[in-house]
Amino acid sequence: MNNKDLEKAKKELPDVQQTEDIRNKRINKVGIRELIIPIKIMEAKDNVRNTVGNISIYVSLSQEQKGTSMSRLVEVVHDVLEENVISSDIIRHILVKLREVLGAEDSYVKLHFTYFAKRKAPVSEKEGYINIPCSFEGKNFNGEDKIYLRVKHMYTSCCPCSRDISDSGAHNQRSVADILVELKGRIKIEELIAIVDKNASCEMYSILKRPDEKYVTEKAYNNPKFVEDVVRDIALDMDTLLDDQISDYVVVINHFESIHQHEAVAIINAGRNLK
Amino acid sequence: MNNKDLEKAKKELPDVQQTEDIRNKRINKVGIRELIIPIKIMEAKDNVRNTVGNISIYVSLSQEQKGTSMSRLVEVVHDVLEENVISSDIIRHILVKLREVLGAEDSYVKLHFTYFAKRKAPVSEKEGYINIPCSFEGKNFNGEDKIYLRVKHMYTSCCPCSRDISDSGAHNQRSVADILVELKGRIKIEELIAIVDKNASCEMYSILKRPDEKYVTEKAYNNPKFVEDVVRDIALDMDTLLDDQISDYVVVINHFESIHQHEAVAIINAGRNLK
Amino acid sequence: MNNKDLEKAKKELPDVQQTEDIRNKRINKVGIRELIIPIKIMEAKDNVRNTVGNISIYVSLSQEQKGTSMSRLVEVVHDVLEENVISSDIIRHILVKLREVLGAEDSYVKLHFTYFAKRKAPVSEKEGYINIPCSFEGKNFNGEDKIYLRVKHMYTSCCPCSRDISDSGAHNQRSVADILVELKGRIKIEELIAIVDKNASCEMYSILKRPDEKYVTEKAYNNPKFVEDVVRDIALDMDTLLDDQISDYVVVINHFESIHQHEAVAIINAGRNLK
Amino acid sequence: MNNKDLEKAKKELPDVQQTEDIRNKRINKVGIRELIIPIKIMEAKDNVRNTVGNISIYVSLSQEQKGTSMSRLVEVVHDVLEENVISSDIIRHILVKLREVLGAEDSYVKLHFTYFAKRKAPVSEKEGYINIPCSFEGKNFNGEDKIYLRVKHMYTSCCPCSRDISDSGAHNQRSVADILVELKGRIKIEELIAIVDKNASCEMYSILKRPDEKYVTEKAYNNPKFVEDVVRDIALDMDTLLDDQISDYVVVINHFESIHQHEAVAIINAGRNLK
Repeated sequence: MNNKDLEKAKKELPDVQQTEDIRNKRINKVGIRELIIPIKIMEAKDNVRNTVGNISIYVSLSQEQKGTSMSRLVEVVHDVLEENVISSDIIRHILVKLREVLGAEDSYVKLHFTYFAKRKAPVSEKEGYINIPCSFEGKNFNGEDKIYLRVKHMYTSCCPCSRDISDSGAHNQRSVADILVELKGRIKIEELIAIVDKNASCEMYSILKRPDEKYVTEKAYNNPKFVEDVVRDIALDMDTLLDDQISDYVVVINHFESIHQHEAVAIINAGRNLK
Repeated sequence: MNNKDLEKAKKELPDVQQTEDIRNKRINKVGIRELIIPIKIMEAKDNVRNTVGNISIYVSLSQEQKGTSMSRLVEVVHDVLEENVISSDIIRHILVKLREVLGAEDSYVKLHFTYFAKRKAPVSEKEGYINIPCSFEGKNFNGEDKIYLRVKHMYTSCCPCSRDISDSGAHNQRSVADILVELKGRIKIEELIAIVDKNASCEMYSILKRPDEKYVTEKAYNNPKFVEDVVRDIALDMDTLLDDQISDYVVVINHFESIHQHEAVAIINAGRNLK
Repeated sequence: MNNKDLEKAKKELPDVQQTEDIRNKRINKVGIRELIIPIKIMEAKDNVRNTVGNISIYVSLSQEQKGTSMSRLVEVVHDVLEENVISSDIIRHILVKLREVLGAEDSYVKLHFTYFAKRKAPVSEKEGYINIPCSFEGKNFNGEDKIYLRVKHMYTSCCPCSRDISDSGAHNQRSVADILVELKGRIKIEELIAIVDKNASCEMYSILKRPDEKYVTEKAYNNPKFVEDVVRDIALDMDTLLDDQISDYVVVINHFESIHQHEAVAIINAGRNLK
Repeated sequence: MNNKDLEKAKKELPDVQQTEDIRNKRINKVGIRELIIPIKIMEAKDNVRNTVGNISIYVSLSQEQKGTSMSRLVEVVHDVLEENVISSDIIRHILVKLREVLGAEDSYVKLHFTYFAKRKAPVSEKEGYINIPCSFEGKNFNGEDKIYLRVKHMYTSCCPCSRDISDSGAHNQRSVADILVELKGRIKIEELIAIVDKNASCEMYSILKRPDEKYVTEKAYNNPKFVEDVVRDIALDMDTLLDDQISDYVVVINHFESIHQHEAVAIINAGRNLK
């Protein structure tokens, strides 16, 4: 169906969303959630990877209008993401397009995806993939753009208390650093991954042969860290990025304790804009 | 083991957490997450129900101290929840105890649980249970207590546009109102449930005989509402509670569209303290 | 509404489900899933605990009938579970009632719930709760009852290879034994929990003081086990129950590797009826 | 590190997995789960899409050997999936390689991924993506290969009872057909999607303009179907594939009832090999 016919077909139908609303109540955000679509992301070494995106998009709605046009929100996302590789600039571009197309004051977008990094084992140098759940978030609120990047990177932690009180061994566990940054300049996902790895008891790999396993076991044992240690060490590194690459951060550390059913957690935020 | 023996046993072991930290970095929150424990909640008609709680507890940690005492956090929760029925007062009590026992400036608690309501079908009056995922949250930050209640209540929505443009039928769907309030005075979970039901296309039931199914189908069809309508109508009712029972709110409306794979969402907040 | 009035109201409405079906296709299972209701379970020491149940119920449907009566399925469950404490006998009773009320050949029921066990720390004897996700399942197929119990119990595992190749330390991790048994006689959830704990590198606790943490760290280090070891040792213990308390079993062992993003898994089944 | 150096480094370390086991207990399956890796899948029109795979791989382990080599399992998967586009032949190839490399009797592989289909709206012809969670599964057990494909495709269902008893409207809802087939010859994911769409009250789209929404609302209303209807109609179409493209099937239909918190479910299996 061509555009002219479509406009004609639409005019023959009532347009309930466009009617006037008399409740005098502005809506902060209206839109859609959990739209699963193909996206393109930039990996290390300028490799473009096609992957799966999970996107949410919202605009504000003035008190005068009954409803927004949900289908146009989806169209904006489809059009932009079909053509472009995801970046903070593309997130900004979606924010602009959403306000233009919907005639809205504010706009919001959130995009989850899996980032892959190829990594060589520390001794055998066997190569495998690690995966890092990430998301970009953008909001244009009161005329101001804010762009956020979130990276959840796994590592191994080893408990200092357990090591010091025990005759041998120390409990260690799967752990996740969940870092949210408000972007000022540019930052690569790989930079945040590197900060986590540097401050972990030991970094993680996909393929470990016996000499590698010896390496990671001993490295973690010789580098024990509480959630409190990891969150402080990462926060100190994040501080060096402030006012240059980022304008705020929140670091959430989770240790999936091997001796408990519950998680140990520690959180430091720079305390500027984010909560 | 009695307390004296335990203190002796502990003294014979190094206490790494208690050592001094020289990184000069205060931790905003440190504690545990996903502790699953039995709890008691108060239902309608003063019925106490034993149920399953999922709790997170955090305290702040001063820059001088290396680590907090995770086991004491668990002990506080166990002691308080073994004895008491959950209420906003008990959440406040946990906040006080956490600061006392840990010597902390700030304290936080979050508790998820399933709330049950018995409900009679509208025509047959057959009785069944509906379930409402809820949570209490408390924080004492900078010496000030804030207590929050969150209620996720399901209902049926019917689309006004679909109804008006179609010769017959209208798409309708499973929907959830997710209401977060900052408490000022007291509010019952049942009050928030009633606000959602009042503003839905139709409320939900567990058991529906044919005369009931006719009732809910026709009620929804004759009462069509966009996410924008439901969020506005609930927000108007929430406004009447402001400054009395609650000091802020966020209402998030989700319609699990029967014609789409994605959700339609609308959000209004009172915009005072919560984001 | 009394039953007479309800029957009258129902008769005035067409009953589509009861019409004849001409497709000549029997339905193996039809019913409902994810019905969340309050249930009562028996804990150790004959303590009855009110908790949250998640139930699925199905019946077969003959080729002649267009639809089953979903509301009656819910009514059966509500009636039985309102009055009774869950046991294998009650599961059998639901199976009978479903066939009676629906006039069905076969019937199925599955019920998930959280089981709590109070447990004293090994040295300090501090008491706390551990939680064990469990389910009962029953099927009456071709006139024969089969009842299953499933228990997912967490423990700590320590890697023998990592220990033997490393100068110090050994990777250890949160682990889950997922045991499914087909009941012949009776078996208590606590018996299956005890079999897992006995064969773990170390059992788990909710509250651990420093002398306890030394105990569990050293116990795990001195008792290292692969997934292969745990599954074999548990299977050998399960074999002793065969033909007496149980007629079949499947043991699935998951180690949430602290050095990898993926899980290590091992499975042994008795290979009689279950797959 | 070259292979020679690696072999030397490995020889200097004890190899616990290779030691003899005296428990006389064969392990049915041992391996890894939740390995997230990049994969390539074939879409309609021979388009190759890079996407995210979640893989599980297992082999059997003889009673004489203490442990399997987990890292080799990962290496097999990495090597095969780095080079090849997923197909039933590649699944068979992984099964062979696993037995070869691990010296195992039996081998198993399961691979989850998101499949995308581009779809034009029925009137406006606006194009968007729908997503279909899929998985391939392969097992070589007792020397025989079996390959399975599973497709979870969403559609709209409308309730015939609700329509017939109500003066206007009918409840309708998001629904999922979950089809598992044992492959005999070849079958395309698009063929199973087409069977679901054909037997739904209405198929789903990503972008719907008002004339499209009128179309889908009226189509669903004029084509009401119970879970029992959908499962029977799909099963009848699946029967036509038996003995040619597939050797068995299980069809599970889920309606996420818009008037209930629970799901309505119906299941038909061909009853040959699958349970």
